[in-house]
Amino acid sequence: MADDALVIFTPSGKRGRVARGTSVLQAARQLGVDLDSVCGGRGICSKCQVQPGLGEFPKHGVTVAPDALSPINAVEERYDRVRGLKPGRRLGCQACIQGDVVLDVPPESQVHRQVIRKSASERVMVMDPASRACFVEVTQPDMHEPSGDFQRLSEALEKQWGIKGLQADLAVLRGLQPALRKGGWSVTAAVHDDGTGAAPRLVALYPGLREAPLYGLAIDLGSTTIAGHLVDLTDGAVLASSGLMNPQIRFGEDLMSRVSYVMMNPGGDVEMTAAVRAALADLAAALAEEAGVDAAGITEACVVCNPVMHHLLLGIDPVELGQAPFALATGAALNLAAAEIGLGSIAPAARAYILPLIAGHVGADAAAVALSEAPETRPDLSLIVDVGTNAEIILGNNQRVLACSSPTGPAFEGAQISSGQRAAPGAIERIEIDPQTKEPRFRIIGNDHWSDDPAFGTPAITGICGSGIIEAVAEMRMAGIVDASGLIGAAEQVGTPRCVATGRTHEYVIHDASPDGPRITVTQGDIRAIQLAKSALYAGARLLMDEMGVDRVDRVVLAGAFGAHISPKHAMVLGMIPDAPLSAVTSAGNAAGTGARMALCSVTARRAIEAQVHNIHKVETAIEPRFQEHFVAANALPHATDPFPELARIVTLPDVSFNTGGSGEGGGRRRRRG
Amino acid sequence: MADDALVIFTPSGKRGRVARGTSVLQAARQLGVDLDSVCGGRGICSKCQVQPGLGEFPKHGVTVAPDALSPINAVEERYDRVRGLKPGRRLGCQACIQGDVVLDVPPESQVHRQVIRKSASERVMVMDPASRACFVEVTQPDMHEPSGDFQRLSEALEKQWGIKGLQADLAVLRGLQPALRKGGWSVTAAVHDDGTGAAPRLVALYPGLREAPLYGLAIDLGSTTIAGHLVDLTDGAVLASSGLMNPQIRFGEDLMSRVSYVMMNPGGDVEMTAAVRAALADLAAALAEEAGVDAAGITEACVVCNPVMHHLLLGIDPVELGQAPFALATGAALNLAAAEIGLGSIAPAARAYILPLIAGHVGADAAAVALSEAPETRPDLSLIVDVGTNAEIILGNNQRVLACSSPTGPAFEGAQISSGQRAAPGAIERIEIDPQTKEPRFRIIGNDHWSDDPAFGTPAITGICGSGIIEAVAEMRMAGIVDASGLIGAAEQVGTPRCVATGRTHEYVIHDASPDGPRITVTQGDIRAIQLAKSALYAGARLLMDEMGVDRVDRVVLAGAFGAHISPKHAMVLGMIPDAPLSAVTSAGNAAGTGARMALCSVTARRAIEAQVHNIHKVETAIEPRFQEHFVAANALPHATDPFPELARIVTLPDVSFNTGGSGEGGGRRRRRG
Repeated sequence: MADDALVIFTPSGKRGRVARGTSVLQAARQLGVDLDSVCGGRGICSKCQVQPGLGEFPKHGVTVAPDALSPINAVEERYDRVRGLKPGRRLGCQACIQGDVVLDVPPESQVHRQVIRKSASERVMVMDPASRACFVEVTQPDMHEPSGDFQRLSEALEKQWGIKGLQADLAVLRGLQPALRKGGWSVTAAVHDDGTGAAPRLVALYPGLREAPLYGLAIDLGSTTIAGHLVDLTDGAVLASSGLMNPQIRFGEDLMSRVSYVMMNPGGDVEMTAAVRAALADLAAALAEEAGVDAAGITEACVVCNPVMHHLLLGIDPVELGQAPFALATGAALNLAAAEIGLGSIAPAARAYILPLIAGHVGADAAAVALSEAPETRPDLSLIVDVGTNAEIILGNNQRVLACSSPTGPAFEGAQISSGQRAAPGAIERIEIDPQTKEPRFRIIGNDHWSDDPAFGTPAITGICGSGIIEAVAEMRMAGIVDASGLIGAAEQVGTPRCVATGRTHEYVIHDASPDGPRITVTQGDIRAIQLAKSALYAGARLLMDEMGVDRVDRVVLAGAFGAHISPKHAMVLGMIPDAPLSAVTSAGNAAGTGARMALCSVTARRAIEAQVHNIHKVETAIEPRFQEHFVAANALPHATDPFPELARIVTLPDVSFNTGGSGEGGGRRRRRG
Repeated sequence: MADDALVIFTPSGKRGRVARGTSVLQAARQLGVDLDSVCGGRGICSKCQVQPGLGEFPKHGVTVAPDALSPINAVEERYDRVRGLKPGRRLGCQACIQGDVVLDVPPESQVHRQVIRKSASERVMVMDPASRACFVEVTQPDMHEPSGDFQRLSEALEKQWGIKGLQADLAVLRGLQPALRKGGWSVTAAVHDDGTGAAPRLVALYPGLREAPLYGLAIDLGSTTIAGHLVDLTDGAVLASSGLMNPQIRFGEDLMSRVSYVMMNPGGDVEMTAAVRAALADLAAALAEEAGVDAAGITEACVVCNPVMHHLLLGIDPVELGQAPFALATGAALNLAAAEIGLGSIAPAARAYILPLIAGHVGADAAAVALSEAPETRPDLSLIVDVGTNAEIILGNNQRVLACSSPTGPAFEGAQISSGQRAAPGAIERIEIDPQTKEPRFRIIGNDHWSDDPAFGTPAITGICGSGIIEAVAEMRMAGIVDASGLIGAAEQVGTPRCVATGRTHEYVIHDASPDGPRITVTQGDIRAIQLAKSALYAGARLLMDEMGVDRVDRVVLAGAFGAHISPKHAMVLGMIPDAPLSAVTSAGNAAGTGARMALCSVTARRAIEAQVHNIHKVETAIEPRFQEHFVAANALPHATDPFPELARIVTLPDVSFNTGGSGEGGGRRRRRG
């Protein structure tokens, strides 16, 4: 019998000979197999579970005897009794190799486990978060060999985990001595290594063995809404999602009005910075509460946002972003103490990663979309549109990637719309208008039935949200209530009493419960707001297509929390997006949020997007004359410049015109960046 | 004529051949000569001045022709006209080498200039501060090639100064855009490189060329007083010195009472942290004002302090330092943002360096003394005593260095003394008592005359400071007013009406202006307080001598702001220090403050003390039975355990005894660490 034995790990296929008596965990480390362990081999964390095979493995050319591993020992027995081990499983730190063996490492025992993203593209995501939990036993202090508790903790982490040159912020040093004593000189250290070569940092300490995973926050900080996800850093699972309004709205609805606020009110940026940081703190607390986890277990945060939000979050006056040449203070990815951006109530020395910005108007949110959708990996030409108060637009393939930002304004989010509201229960989100009767039916958020279904009941109907207004305008166009120029016809022109005159224009009544309930209408002003927004969006996309030298794209991806709810057909009727086969228009859900989660969970993803932004060519819409031309030309519904053959195949738009020659209907009210 | 020329730089003696036409600054860089430049060769900072020689230099084997350097150019002419150049001086960035030349680099043109410390040991100190001023011209932003201002600044610093991988805190990023625009895209960047291999950091930005140097703060944070120096980081010159009381005194006079305060008042550490940080901020502002400099030019701070002050400054609960095994949270040197310890009003991203601690009771102040006095460089055995509320004691030579801390209490600083006060105008600092008449004469701070000199006048006499009380007690012992046990005799025993009964003990009246003025006396309680303090100090020194296995030391160095004022003779009469030839007892002034200045001005010094503390053997007085034995045995004046032959040579102590056998004189009131 040889002194060593052949060990084969599956699914990696890594194999090698190790001395008999070697523990499975040691063998895995020797052979570079990705086998997790938090307790460092003490038989208490159970992260290192493996499943030994038995019998013949012709593929591997090995036969595994029943005694290939040492018998189940007392530690495993106790663990099985107290916590339960799945049948056949062994603790890798306890089972020792006694003969040739094939060992399967189940996904949950892999550190860098692969997870399938639940998204249209179903990409595989590798977990390699910056923070890792390491259980250590620390030498007790000795008066005769005095050294600091931190020095002894560092030595333990170096010896037991190979972590060298550990650094610690004051925030975590403050809790060090109580944690060590409470844990009886055993602690679980959360160690952050961002993969940039910077020294590893101690970001949190938990007395004894921490059973729970470490958590991360992925935050999509928009001009209007702030969305956050609480993520399990071991498997990337989203444990809670929540959102709130950006409290900066009281300083200005869109980006440029916030920049103007600072210009008019010196020090106004300080107020806005304080407001958004307080909101992030609230969001973190809400997410932890919703998920039922201790906020002190959150050791990482990742934030994506547009450049103005970025500077205001960091406490940098955004005034330079309000005027050409739109110079960023800094565009690089940032590794910060999370407390610096208001997240002081999570782990004391938690870190925050902020994705790189692409340009003065193309932010970290666009970078996150690029990271999530990865157009540079595909041969076909993708147009990716992230619709928010600003639209981030990316056009590219594996040859070239372009990006710009377009000032759509908040209309797509239900703001500046007469009956508009944010997406919340009671808001109309879907609408159909019968082309013959001009009668509407709709669905509201929180109710699975259409309004003409008796099961709809009598719920509170509160307003119309962003996707609802798009459907409403498109349906009005398809039903002949609105003409190509965007004018709402009079009741006698359209043939329905739902068209009601208001001054010199008309509005279409979707729902009228007055005087006791709401009266929900689409006004001429609403149509104009949507026209401006969609023109900006379309002009941005066209500008990138011009730059790329193409007239058509192969696929359109609608991103953004709201993009997920836009009906491709309605978007095309409006002319929000270039003409494309409906089957080639997909939703990527909240791609910026997905990108934030990817960067949260993987330092590899961080390096990827940092490299990628350098290769993205930025197009500045604000100074490009063709943007204005496209913008003006795109006013019609869908619009006048481009043929929409694909659209024509699925819908016939009525050839109506309500133009009375008057100019008093209040169009063209606003044109601003924001 | 060869294409190249021989260039010799003095005083370094570095020599080499460079292409004709090379500027002197370039030549210096090629040859590794230490020639300063802030403007990077633009002819505006004048830091690169050199003095060319002329004629024969037999030592160097070269003859310098009058045209060895290019003629004075327009830049130099303008500089000379506007600012003035010393005769014969040239600007190294303008003068080009045309032939063999000898160039002297004057001290003020050297980056790492050597300065002679004005101290007893007159050691040479090399300036290599962590912060350096670099003038750069930054590319303006371009909308078509968008990049952040910080990215363009970093590129400029890399290209023009070879600084790679620059990092910046949010605090300095906030001021980046205004500074670049105010300076017309030229700025002076203060770049911090602490020499540990960490990324260089941008710590401050000044529009255009900064004419003034960068400054640093050296802070000696004591339990009772906080002393600070404002230092010019180019030459180490002290531009202002100031001190204030540690505001933590209201929480407890000595260290242990502050630790007790925290134990009794949970959260009390937070109050004390806030108090000391506010004091540091006040001190920084006061120093900048005194020196007449802009506090924004202060880019570095260096702090030395004992372990309890250290933890309280950092916001770490010091409770573990109040009980065995006296475990430090961390003992390592710390590189922090200065704002983290209250210094937010200096340069926004200024850095603070805190020297390493030696042990639970032997702090960064002791490390600073070790750095300043460098006993490990000498063959003779030095006993270095830094007298404060705690005495830091170091014993060592080039073979071995030991250290301990001894809880002398604040008596040596004039606290807990009936007429005690801190060293300030009006305080008695010197005293002599006539052995025959028992009459005193004294000097007060702020007056050059003895009190029996008519020129003394009638100044306000306010109390007695630390050095004064030591002299008073020693003089009382030499005059036979106090016996070896420390008892003050009655008027009839001593033979002077200045000995006055107060209850069962006596006091000696030094000055009595009552009822209109102060009555300054030395009470029996004062003697006991001094006995306790000196016993603790002596016992600590003896403990180290025991550990070293010696009975005598070769030299005694008295350090500490107060140590500078102690008379060696009187210290020996008291038995504060072991017997030694008077000539071997020297004062090192504020050695801890000097060590702080050295670490402030030199990253090499930082590395030196970080290495040195590992080699210092720490002795813990609190748990060492022999410390208690020495302490008890050292109660007498001078004391009973050791012969004092050196002392006997210079003074005869009267053989008096006032012991009445009673026990009611209140000795041994306190015995506590602090």
